[in-house]
Amino acid sequence: MTEIRRGATATRRSTGTPETHGFIGTQRDEEPAESSGGQGPVMAEGHEAATLLRESRASVDPELRSAIASLPDSMRRIALYHFGWQHADGTPATGNAGKAIRPALVLTAATALGGPTARAAAGRAAAAVELAHNFTLLHDDVMDRDVTRRHRPTAWTVFGDADAILAGDALQALALRLLAADPHPASAAAAARLSDCVMELCEGQHVDTALEGRPPGEVTLDETLAMAEAKTGALLGCACALGALYAGAAPEDVEALDAFGREAGLAFQLIDDVIGIWGDPRHTGKPAGADLAARKKSLPVVAALTSGTPAAAELAELYAAPYDEDKEDLERTALVVERAGGRDWAQAQAADRMARAMQELARAVPAPEAAGGLLALAEFVTRRST
Amino acid sequence: MTEIRRGATATRRSTGTPETHGFIGTQRDEEPAESSGGQGPVMAEGHEAATLLRESRASVDPELRSAIASLPDSMRRIALYHFGWQHADGTPATGNAGKAIRPALVLTAATALGGPTARAAAGRAAAAVELAHNFTLLHDDVMDRDVTRRHRPTAWTVFGDADAILAGDALQALALRLLAADPHPASAAAAARLSDCVMELCEGQHVDTALEGRPPGEVTLDETLAMAEAKTGALLGCACALGALYAGAAPEDVEALDAFGREAGLAFQLIDDVIGIWGDPRHTGKPAGADLAARKKSLPVVAALTSGTPAAAELAELYAAPYDEDKEDLERTALVVERAGGRDWAQAQAADRMARAMQELARAVPAPEAAGGLLALAEFVTRRST
Repeated sequence: MTEIRRGATATRRSTGTPETHGFIGTQRDEEPAESSGGQGPVMAEGHEAATLLRESRASVDPELRSAIASLPDSMRRIALYHFGWQHADGTPATGNAGKAIRPALVLTAATALGGPTARAAAGRAAAAVELAHNFTLLHDDVMDRDVTRRHRPTAWTVFGDADAILAGDALQALALRLLAADPHPASAAAAARLSDCVMELCEGQHVDTALEGRPPGEVTLDETLAMAEAKTGALLGCACALGALYAGAAPEDVEALDAFGREAGLAFQLIDDVIGIWGDPRHTGKPAGADLAARKKSLPVVAALTSGTPAAAELAELYAAPYDEDKEDLERTALVVERAGGRDWAQAQAADRMARAMQELARAVPAPEAAGGLLALAEFVTRRST
Repeated sequence: MTEIRRGATATRRSTGTPETHGFIGTQRDEEPAESSGGQGPVMAEGHEAATLLRESRASVDPELRSAIASLPDSMRRIALYHFGWQHADGTPATGNAGKAIRPALVLTAATALGGPTARAAAGRAAAAVELAHNFTLLHDDVMDRDVTRRHRPTAWTVFGDADAILAGDALQALALRLLAADPHPASAAAAARLSDCVMELCEGQHVDTALEGRPPGEVTLDETLAMAEAKTGALLGCACALGALYAGAAPEDVEALDAFGREAGLAFQLIDDVIGIWGDPRHTGKPAGADLAARKKSLPVVAALTSGTPAAAELAELYAAPYDEDKEDLERTALVVERAGGRDWAQAQAADRMARAMQELARAVPAPEAAGGLLALAEFVTRRST
């Protein structure tokens, strides 16, 4: 599961989507603003997303902190560390619990379909989604042996595998507990939906690992897209659907909001994969071409490998051996992916997914002023520097 | 988490508890009967437990199989293997999914407090408890590096750590999903209770690992008992409480049944620990003294270590070094634990816990004919060969 990368700034995208809904704007969240081609109305959208995220954090943090405070001692300690609210020794930390885009989606979806009353009612559901997300982060970090999360050592590197697994288990239970204890009439449907989503996330993580273990020539684009939808799209869709449920929306509107979140999530993953190859290390905090060095079968790479072009054969040959910094120039490998059409495909796909997301949103929330918040959030997560 | 060991036969216990409620009887479950001091009325209790377990399995298996069938492909495959219903290659297996004592407790508690109607309503809750139990088994086996479960290689040895963790995560989600989708008025309270229990199980597993890592002289009996209650008692208590909830029982009766299950669970753990030291390998399937060789800080060992006797000092010295089969006779070490009072304490504690369990049961279910099933199950799990 990929956390939304921070510090990326906006550039004009090269393909698709109507201008007013394009991946344009500046990022003005907690990160210092970078100068880029900001424009009036789009700047306003960037501001709107930042405001939504800030307001959402302000609503959700007390719920989250109170829920985490109810955990048994050791589980609480690991959770507080993971959320960035405590150091490993238990002393308070200033905290970097991530952007919390998922609870913002819950609350903004609730507002879009049910106004402030629905937003106020959906606080626990928003916290539940964020807890479920963080449970998957704790476990994924163990499985993927990732050592850094939100600029800090991952929980398993500090507390060991067993405790990181247990804390993840406890956060999953806590997420469902919040919904089970919520008297709102939508809470049971929300719990069922969140549980279904967790199963899909598990399958997505399994398939991701399985795909990475298979020879590059045997991986299809369809299964890579399906994996990305399960691993990333599912929870963004679930977050939007939960907001709709708490607004008492009609079943078809709940499904439309789920589809909106899924499509936006796929767009996000496509852009994230583009950044993983062509991203500016000054903004991404990762070395350029890191995903290529790791031989990651990200979406642009699989698109390139399956393109049937001469560059595809060249890329397959490079991917057949581990990366050797003395023999391989990653910028050149990135160029091979680009020549095979991987970059253009990913950007066109992202645009296509965002267009579909807009269609789904317009179906459930036809009034532009009501849909604006969700739109701003969707653009925020896909508005990234390449 | 300890699975209830199979193949143990009954012996007359040496201490405590009224005769008719003692740990006496023959085991007539799926295992071949062994000749032991069976008596008329007690034989009937042994039969009753076996019948309850068989009937419970017949009710719960369809729920379990249908729930597992709803899992995404890979998660389903691992779950079916873990439950013994498929071989690793996906072909059907005759199955050994364990005794399923926990769902039997749910259904029997529901019957005790609400008759056949409550029993019929509690089917999903029973399956949910069994799924939650199996989620913890999958994860505990990964953490403890246990290679055998129910006479088969554990899931992580077959599918790898990551997939065993993911399948556990998916089973937890599935357990809560069953309750979320259950229209019964008690389902939300049951989900909240099961979630709380999962958090307690996580903490129990954490404390268990932490205690095993500490010097023997620094471990107290109280914290070992608290750990055993969290790790083993909590879920047995939760199972009984869920049955009571589905019977529409009064809050104090729900709590009394939780306490009954917890106390019976502790009695079970105490007897299990006694078997781990003095059990007959022909019945336990484990070498005699296995827990001593592993330097396990089981309840009789901690009782011995903290007894202040000369034997305690002798045991502490032995436990200060890893077991060396050339230098140490495990039978002699077992005798040291016994001389330090570890065995007598554990058996007296087990009797005491069973007596408390009976009191709690009598409070919630005064009529002996209604309480009989729960009593039979409690005795079944604690009726073990030493």
